[in-house]
Amino acid sequence: MSEPRIRMAGFAGSLRAGSFNRAMLRAAREHAPDGVDLDILDLTDVPIYNGDVEAAGDPEPVTRLKAAVHGADLVLIATPEYNFGVPAVTKNAIDWASRPPRPHAWDGKPVAVMGTSPGRFGTVNAQRVVRQSLTHLNAYVLPQPMIVIPGASGLFDDDLRLVDPPTIERMTKFMAAAAGWARRFLGPGGAE
Amino acid sequence: MSEPRIRMAGFAGSLRAGSFNRAMLRAAREHAPDGVDLDILDLTDVPIYNGDVEAAGDPEPVTRLKAAVHGADLVLIATPEYNFGVPAVTKNAIDWASRPPRPHAWDGKPVAVMGTSPGRFGTVNAQRVVRQSLTHLNAYVLPQPMIVIPGASGLFDDDLRLVDPPTIERMTKFMAAAAGWARRFLGPGGAE
Amino acid sequence: MSEPRIRMAGFAGSLRAGSFNRAMLRAAREHAPDGVDLDILDLTDVPIYNGDVEAAGDPEPVTRLKAAVHGADLVLIATPEYNFGVPAVTKNAIDWASRPPRPHAWDGKPVAVMGTSPGRFGTVNAQRVVRQSLTHLNAYVLPQPMIVIPGASGLFDDDLRLVDPPTIERMTKFMAAAAGWARRFLGPGGAE
Amino acid sequence: MSEPRIRMAGFAGSLRAGSFNRAMLRAAREHAPDGVDLDILDLTDVPIYNGDVEAAGDPEPVTRLKAAVHGADLVLIATPEYNFGVPAVTKNAIDWASRPPRPHAWDGKPVAVMGTSPGRFGTVNAQRVVRQSLTHLNAYVLPQPMIVIPGASGLFDDDLRLVDPPTIERMTKFMAAAAGWARRFLGPGGAE
Repeated sequence: MSEPRIRMAGFAGSLRAGSFNRAMLRAAREHAPDGVDLDILDLTDVPIYNGDVEAAGDPEPVTRLKAAVHGADLVLIATPEYNFGVPAVTKNAIDWASRPPRPHAWDGKPVAVMGTSPGRFGTVNAQRVVRQSLTHLNAYVLPQPMIVIPGASGLFDDDLRLVDPPTIERMTKFMAAAAGWARRFLGPGGAE
Repeated sequence: MSEPRIRMAGFAGSLRAGSFNRAMLRAAREHAPDGVDLDILDLTDVPIYNGDVEAAGDPEPVTRLKAAVHGADLVLIATPEYNFGVPAVTKNAIDWASRPPRPHAWDGKPVAVMGTSPGRFGTVNAQRVVRQSLTHLNAYVLPQPMIVIPGASGLFDDDLRLVDPPTIERMTKFMAAAAGWARRFLGPGGAE
Repeated sequence: MSEPRIRMAGFAGSLRAGSFNRAMLRAAREHAPDGVDLDILDLTDVPIYNGDVEAAGDPEPVTRLKAAVHGADLVLIATPEYNFGVPAVTKNAIDWASRPPRPHAWDGKPVAVMGTSPGRFGTVNAQRVVRQSLTHLNAYVLPQPMIVIPGASGLFDDDLRLVDPPTIERMTKFMAAAAGWARRFLGPGGAE
Repeated sequence: MSEPRIRMAGFAGSLRAGSFNRAMLRAAREHAPDGVDLDILDLTDVPIYNGDVEAAGDPEPVTRLKAAVHGADLVLIATPEYNFGVPAVTKNAIDWASRPPRPHAWDGKPVAVMGTSPGRFGTVNAQRVVRQSLTHLNAYVLPQPMIVIPGASGLFDDDLRLVDPPTIERMTKFMAAAAGWARRFLGPGGAE
């Protein structure tokens, strides 16, 4: 009997057309193991969180974001790092999907975090604060391997396809670990 | 000879009309020592950071935000906490004002951070990550006293005026410390 | 067929005879669900980490600590908080047990973290940095519920027995969650 | 009239005889600007913090540590990083010197933090948590420049003398900034 397919949803914490983190998500899809589907979300029209907007009813892009997180077996977050911290785009998506408080879309949800940025320390700080928020929300965040990629620009070709062999190898291992992590929490005793 | 006036600029990390953190800024202005002016910025129209938008030229609300940070003797940040982290509104304002990298508006800038939120731990996590980003940017962040106010709703009246006497006392001390901190870095040897 | 027993090992990040965190471990044992054994380690004679000492051969208390972490189905850490951070006792135990790098005792190990301290914010900061180190070490740290207990002194009787009913209830839920977390990672597909 | 001399006290968060961080302190002394004295403390005999030991009276090495922090115009901390966090040696010294709570040796004390470790991210995590504890203690921590040195072993000669020219240049700038930072807080209006 074959294993069930793993449905992942992914989003990148950057709105730039040429985002390296969105390119990382495409590479993640390309190098995912068999049996894994990755749906890449578009956060362009998700407004910045505002309690008054929420009270008037979720905007449609927010509704789609929440549904995607709810429905996924694992959420894959690719985040840049700005100023030793998390970009507004990444945190905004996490915060919207955490509403309303109970039950929310992150509760018991397997998550894997990765990131790339031009700086020297990659995204070690951004990933740390993302993990802390997700832990608070009772998401199950894959601890290792950690994909922290500094110096993003040399790893992709002109079409933003990941072409650096060692990074491809790390991505392949990361996606295998993410798929295994999602499987741990599937079905009875899985994400509730 | 009298001491020079201290020009502070403040912003709140919430867009809600009834924001307690904006109310905190108004209370900060009310209870500031003599000789301190506090200009409260409106972040409503600051778009979420996007490198493509920036490349096309700063939107006008961003230009105003940067000018306000540049021109202030001290920047006062009042931030809520979302999910053990910083709200997108707060981080977005910090990130926009950090661009372009050198020289940027935070370099050598005195800053004081405060916050209130309904949760049990006030804003201790949000303030921590805000401070880390500002430290990275070489801002001079007042270390203590820390204003972390949990359970915001009981402290304000129906017009969102701070009416809780112990909190007013803490605010008064905090603003005196912030003014003293700003004065340390004024003039020769001050913020460059 | 009955479920296998869960063997937990626990340590407290305080050496004081009257440690509230050690008292928390005893309360954890008392209020653990059926089928859970908790062995409480004594860190008194674990020396402060020193690479030269390690190179000469692990002192016996270190050998025992590592064996206990290796052999446990879940490690329970009860930590105080000092100065918004982790006490040396807690971090020292984590660091010794992380040596040598590969394979080390924390790799794939389920862990649950709790803590109590007299301060206003309980141990939210200490737990955060403990979790970050453990995540780096690929331990599987229970995300929620979080047991952060401020104002420790009122919760225990003169014999340091936990007597506060709401705290007992939270402890009971926490231990049930910890046992369930350990069970997730038992056996095939479990901690490797 | 000449400027007053700056008396710095420094300690390293490692007890190894061949510690790179202690070597960093010696390099800091060698490349300090004129007018700066740096006294390097030995933490070898500082016991791990224990409230019962403290209640019986500070051990002599603790008394010396506290006096050195109290008497310095600036404290220079060189810390390794263990497991994305602070080593016990570093945190233990900070915690002892923070006792008793008021007044304590860190209150209003200028501090500069640096660190080197073999890992890829240098000591960015260790420095972050050290800074957070010091901020809580109202120390005035130099925000930038940050000396984070990964891959320590290639930078020193067999006698552990810093010989890497770019690192020497960064150290020279760092010590000039630390001296300037100490001078800001000297005298009236200085550290209280």
